[in-house]
Amino acid sequence: MQLYELVLNDGHAVSPFVWRVRMALAHKGLPYDSVPIGYGDKDKLAFSGQDRVPVLVDGDDVVSDSWRIACYLEDAYPDRPSLFGGAGGRASGLFFNRWCDTQQLGNLFLLCTPGTFDLTPEADQAYFRESRFEWSGMTIEQMREDPPKKIAALHGALEPVRQTLQEQAWLGGDQPAFPDHCLFGGFMWARTTSDFRLLDAEDPVEQWRQRMLDLFDGMARKAPAVQQD
Amino acid sequence: MQLYELVLNDGHAVSPFVWRVRMALAHKGLPYDSVPIGYGDKDKLAFSGQDRVPVLVDGDDVVSDSWRIACYLEDAYPDRPSLFGGAGGRASGLFFNRWCDTQQLGNLFLLCTPGTFDLTPEADQAYFRESRFEWSGMTIEQMREDPPKKIAALHGALEPVRQTLQEQAWLGGDQPAFPDHCLFGGFMWARTTSDFRLLDAEDPVEQWRQRMLDLFDGMARKAPAVQQD
Repeated sequence: MQLYELVLNDGHAVSPFVWRVRMALAHKGLPYDSVPIGYGDKDKLAFSGQDRVPVLVDGDDVVSDSWRIACYLEDAYPDRPSLFGGAGGRASGLFFNRWCDTQQLGNLFLLCTPGTFDLTPEADQAYFRESRFEWSGMTIEQMREDPPKKIAALHGALEPVRQTLQEQAWLGGDQPAFPDHCLFGGFMWARTTSDFRLLDAEDPVEQWRQRMLDLFDGMARKAPAVQQD
Repeated sequence: MQLYELVLNDGHAVSPFVWRVRMALAHKGLPYDSVPIGYGDKDKLAFSGQDRVPVLVDGDDVVSDSWRIACYLEDAYPDRPSLFGGAGGRASGLFFNRWCDTQQLGNLFLLCTPGTFDLTPEADQAYFRESRFEWSGMTIEQMREDPPKKIAALHGALEPVRQTLQEQAWLGGDQPAFPDHCLFGGFMWARTTSDFRLLDAEDPVEQWRQRMLDLFDGMARKAPAVQQD
């Protein structure tokens, strides 16, 4: 298996969507070869019929989009540990995935984009600046303003996660599932790019994040990052 | 089985939490006797060890809190249609429940509280006013201001639901599950108390709401309400 991943300076894998799939592959116990690409290498993804990472190649199968990759892995490797815990878990998992996309990543976007820019090779910085300005109407410098306000908004958006983790150890219940990997992907974007402390030590979400960093022999904890705790 | 339910003037059952359980009981095909109570009847719930509806009495079992009632029904009646679709569905269902509580109901609170007040028997209006002022710092009259702004905020909060329902017919996947009943409870609060149009006809969430109204032989559609569509 090959996983096409975005990798920036010093080996920082910053994409929350790539992290969802890295964790899902580890969850299933499936080894793979990494194919690192940069923002300027989108032509290398042309074979997948679109231009975004992650892309998984498994024999003759080519799958893009982290949600579709998770569903593919669940269906193709049903005897490996389940990512969804049944049909109901997959159905509710889609909502959770979309909630992460719009709410968690929406709140992380202005926080993590400047650090992502700082890790982008010089040749791709103009592209990066322009594409992010198109999406948000903001320059990288404008995005750097007032992190505490943005962290507070993120904290509020995470409230239903916090309440859930007060009642169960993982979003998947008594064991991690794809929703855990999904949410964790966003926190890995922060960890690999930025030095903000997003969560207090006593926050159940932070305690969960620490457990996620420990999974799979500390795979995520060992990855090149800006944050070290 | 007996279900203690909040019922206001003209038989309007306004509680979103009661509606979650009404739908869950219909989903399981379990008949029950309704015990309607008002805001002034909280002493009638003392046997449950707390003072909020819904309370389900099933033989010797007394269960309060809509989430705990759903889990109770799933465990006590495993041979009836499943509310969660497996362990993963229950685990992710808890997050969805908390998301509804904080995001959907949070956005409906200022919209639906005035209409709820209007349906409250005169004897309980002072209690209602005071308790809602304590929670929100607002009078009923202040809450009536600028519904369009509040409807727009609700619309934004519903975005991950909308994206999910663009890909599958129900939050439960190809059939309704407890997350559907959970979200629908909030919309029944609106329908039974208020005449706002919250959703456009072409919104996937509205199309789903119409399907929910049709479930169980149109049970929810037939209930006394302010909205009629």
